[in-house]
Amino acid sequence: MSFANLEYMSTGQRPTMRPWQYKLHSIIFESNTFYGKLFDIALLACILLSVIVVMIDSVPPYHAKYADIFYAIEWVFTILFTAEYILRLFCIRKPMAYALSWMGIIDLCAIIPTYISLLVAGTQYLLVLRALRLLRIFRIFKLWHFLDEGRFLLEALAKSVRKISIFMLFIVIIVVILGSCMYLIEGASNGFNSIPESIYWAIVTITTVGYGDISPVTPLGKLLSCILMLCGYGIIAVPTGIVTSQMMAEWRNKHISDVQCKSCGKWNHEKDAKYCRYCGASLGE
Amino acid sequence: MSFANLEYMSTGQRPTMRPWQYKLHSIIFESNTFYGKLFDIALLACILLSVIVVMIDSVPPYHAKYADIFYAIEWVFTILFTAEYILRLFCIRKPMAYALSWMGIIDLCAIIPTYISLLVAGTQYLLVLRALRLLRIFRIFKLWHFLDEGRFLLEALAKSVRKISIFMLFIVIIVVILGSCMYLIEGASNGFNSIPESIYWAIVTITTVGYGDISPVTPLGKLLSCILMLCGYGIIAVPTGIVTSQMMAEWRNKHISDVQCKSCGKWNHEKDAKYCRYCGASLGE
Amino acid sequence: MSFANLEYMSTGQRPTMRPWQYKLHSIIFESNTFYGKLFDIALLACILLSVIVVMIDSVPPYHAKYADIFYAIEWVFTILFTAEYILRLFCIRKPMAYALSWMGIIDLCAIIPTYISLLVAGTQYLLVLRALRLLRIFRIFKLWHFLDEGRFLLEALAKSVRKISIFMLFIVIIVVILGSCMYLIEGASNGFNSIPESIYWAIVTITTVGYGDISPVTPLGKLLSCILMLCGYGIIAVPTGIVTSQMMAEWRNKHISDVQCKSCGKWNHEKDAKYCRYCGASLGE
Amino acid sequence: MSFANLEYMSTGQRPTMRPWQYKLHSIIFESNTFYGKLFDIALLACILLSVIVVMIDSVPPYHAKYADIFYAIEWVFTILFTAEYILRLFCIRKPMAYALSWMGIIDLCAIIPTYISLLVAGTQYLLVLRALRLLRIFRIFKLWHFLDEGRFLLEALAKSVRKISIFMLFIVIIVVILGSCMYLIEGASNGFNSIPESIYWAIVTITTVGYGDISPVTPLGKLLSCILMLCGYGIIAVPTGIVTSQMMAEWRNKHISDVQCKSCGKWNHEKDAKYCRYCGASLGE
Repeated sequence: MSFANLEYMSTGQRPTMRPWQYKLHSIIFESNTFYGKLFDIALLACILLSVIVVMIDSVPPYHAKYADIFYAIEWVFTILFTAEYILRLFCIRKPMAYALSWMGIIDLCAIIPTYISLLVAGTQYLLVLRALRLLRIFRIFKLWHFLDEGRFLLEALAKSVRKISIFMLFIVIIVVILGSCMYLIEGASNGFNSIPESIYWAIVTITTVGYGDISPVTPLGKLLSCILMLCGYGIIAVPTGIVTSQMMAEWRNKHISDVQCKSCGKWNHEKDAKYCRYCGASLGE
Repeated sequence: MSFANLEYMSTGQRPTMRPWQYKLHSIIFESNTFYGKLFDIALLACILLSVIVVMIDSVPPYHAKYADIFYAIEWVFTILFTAEYILRLFCIRKPMAYALSWMGIIDLCAIIPTYISLLVAGTQYLLVLRALRLLRIFRIFKLWHFLDEGRFLLEALAKSVRKISIFMLFIVIIVVILGSCMYLIEGASNGFNSIPESIYWAIVTITTVGYGDISPVTPLGKLLSCILMLCGYGIIAVPTGIVTSQMMAEWRNKHISDVQCKSCGKWNHEKDAKYCRYCGASLGE
Repeated sequence: MSFANLEYMSTGQRPTMRPWQYKLHSIIFESNTFYGKLFDIALLACILLSVIVVMIDSVPPYHAKYADIFYAIEWVFTILFTAEYILRLFCIRKPMAYALSWMGIIDLCAIIPTYISLLVAGTQYLLVLRALRLLRIFRIFKLWHFLDEGRFLLEALAKSVRKISIFMLFIVIIVVILGSCMYLIEGASNGFNSIPESIYWAIVTITTVGYGDISPVTPLGKLLSCILMLCGYGIIAVPTGIVTSQMMAEWRNKHISDVQCKSCGKWNHEKDAKYCRYCGASLGE
Repeated sequence: MSFANLEYMSTGQRPTMRPWQYKLHSIIFESNTFYGKLFDIALLACILLSVIVVMIDSVPPYHAKYADIFYAIEWVFTILFTAEYILRLFCIRKPMAYALSWMGIIDLCAIIPTYISLLVAGTQYLLVLRALRLLRIFRIFKLWHFLDEGRFLLEALAKSVRKISIFMLFIVIIVVILGSCMYLIEGASNGFNSIPESIYWAIVTITTVGYGDISPVTPLGKLLSCILMLCGYGIIAVPTGIVTSQMMAEWRNKHISDVQCKSCGKWNHEKDAKYCRYCGASLGE
């Protein structure tokens, strides 16, 4: 680590960037140049490959045969990603901002589990967290317009969050009370071993998943399940209605122009408005 | 119980409130003061804790070990909530109105099961009804705006209630008839023991829950199930459509006024508009 | 059967109605008078009771004990409903029109199975068809406004029928092809005994019912199921979208006035229109 | 193959069409004439029959008894369809364009599996690909208006494809990460044999299918499943919201023109409007 970097640690911003840092920055962080593109595609391929290796490693017959090879590949990828992470820190003006950004944290999560697995066995499977790095696909292939759509979705969801959280609270209360009733009605002999397990059953039922590992046996229990099922079938309409109406409101907002009334300074006029709806002044002038 | 309270019993309204009653009222019913806030948060914590204790108590291994401790805790909470309930009655101007309000009934339900469990074993699990008291979360944290959203949801649901109840009547009739047909086709040897049980199966199928505790065996039975499943898959669209269109109508009603511009005759002005957005004439005249 | 009725058989309309026929008609078909109301409520109670009796009769323990009683009750109800059916035919001006109307056919279906059960055993369970008679609830309690809502639902569904039938055709083709692929991949040893059974499995999967009586075992089969599941999860949006947008269009149509342009004779003007959009003539005059 | 056809192979267009080719073309490709209609209906019947034969052939008891008959029928249909395919190539002006069109490829897929089954056993079940030929139903019965509705659906879906693919990417990432967590929590002893299998379970759960072939056993696993289920139950609203709002935008675009009245400045006129519905001025100028 250079002296400049140590100085940076206190000021939060790297004082100067050497030419090779600029060069590296353009390769790693940008994808305009040929080498930049090459790096990005290679990186994406590495991420995909490493996730697939972790998955296959967990399949017993393959693990039995090729455990050593997978272990080696895992370390190769981990060292590669570690090198990439350190390089990223080295060639950016504000390394701390990157390290604390979502992308920086995800990049760190993609390498830590291998090191931890030296101490605690089994954690190497957490390497599937590397799947999160696939979100880079948007940045790498310049799929900004895709992200724009995603932002539209997230905004609509974010604005529905209140309504949906109330809805979820009601679901939780229904599920706690009906789950407990089922525990009283069916009892441990029919698989409803405890209230938490009965609540698990109630969630399995109200969400229409229906594993069938626990299912009602007594007539009264079956009656209550029927109510719970019809309930779950009917109220699925509620989050759907919330999100749909929110999306259409969002869509409508797209039809709001960004013209400001020169007379009263108010915004939010519709695209086809000619006069300010607050003061009546003409908008077109 | 004071003489004033006895007198109240006939008139329905407490004649006078003593200073300590005012003091207590502000602590228990309001949350502006420091003690009021403290009381509310402590109450919420007690509710959550007591519900969790009831749940854990039902898990066999924990029940085997700590049954006595849980029993004690249960009584502590019950006595606390009983005291709180009596205090609430004592420091409000109209105790009867409170006792008969939704909140009052829920508060009573939260303490009664323990007393009943002295007479009838097993009813202590009904204490999960205390979960309903969690609805206080809205009042305590002044989440009125959340409740406002909830009211919006409830209104949209209430206005859809007719359409949804017709929809439910059709589902019930379909389910009764197809369930009976399956009873004739499959018979008791394939798990369809009786018509009520076959109707239970039909509900499990049409709501797409699909436990698999009963499933068709004969070819004809499988064919009929396929129809029922496709039916259930398709008509989920109906309640969704009802609620969504209702919500959008609500949303529109909230935003669009029914004022017509006297100058150009245009409708569809937003509720906060003061001037016509087409001709600029004042809408207020 | 009177001579007048025989004559009617050829002309299709009863020539005259005797006073007692008018009287009976007002009791059976109308519910303005006290006796009319009484008859309707008694009828509804009988329908409900008879359906419940058929259901309970199918439960083995009750059937073992009370089969004779149930059999007797069944015949009592059948004779009652038969008498009612004959009376309806007798006191209406156009008996044939009634017999061929939906209500008439349903009324007939409610009595026939008992008579058939004398010839073919087991058909008495078809008596649950009487559940369809519960639709009378709308007529009896003058729930016309409910029916109005129902008509709104049916209209929206009817107008979506083309889109939904195309959607269903696609589902059927997907299900046939993927079902057959699964038959080739999994084979009879894993429960996929034949192509029809594999198609049944595919429908169970795509509709998200998921009994679990047949489930994929091989890795390739699991991969294909995942695609089918995600498919079914995603395209549920299509019928929902169709019905919702149709409902909103319906709702919008309610905002179409029934004013006809006096100049060009065209309809379909919006409620807020002042001038015909086809010829420009004023609508208000 | 005639000389003209050989010449065509290089130029991509048949130079001349003989009279019998015109005649055949009108029978096979058109359905205006009596023979054209007859051919089309016979073809559709053959397709349906051949698909049904393949299905029934796969049912073990029928296969045991009638395998030879089914084999013969299969070859009859294959030869018929082969003849039809060759005739189609012979009597069209641009055979290559037909062979490479969707319909041409589907027609080829409907005959190839039988020939391949001579080399590789078992592939004859791929003949269900003939089901795709049922799409001809639209063309044959001139159900263009149905196709028009289908196009509407496809357009709405195509425009939603970006949003839905982002949504699917998120689902895949959630499913990979939660599936791996479940593998760590539950382990092979509870049926979660490997990460790919756990991901399969996660998809079964999030899509609310819920076979129950694998289901969580440990308390922590059950808690995580509950989150996954509620997740899947809630986010079904997202694709629904996307498709519905897209469909309504499509619908609006189809009906509302973007013409502004020059006289009163009003927008939102329907596509078939000739005069402004607010001021009566002509819109066409």
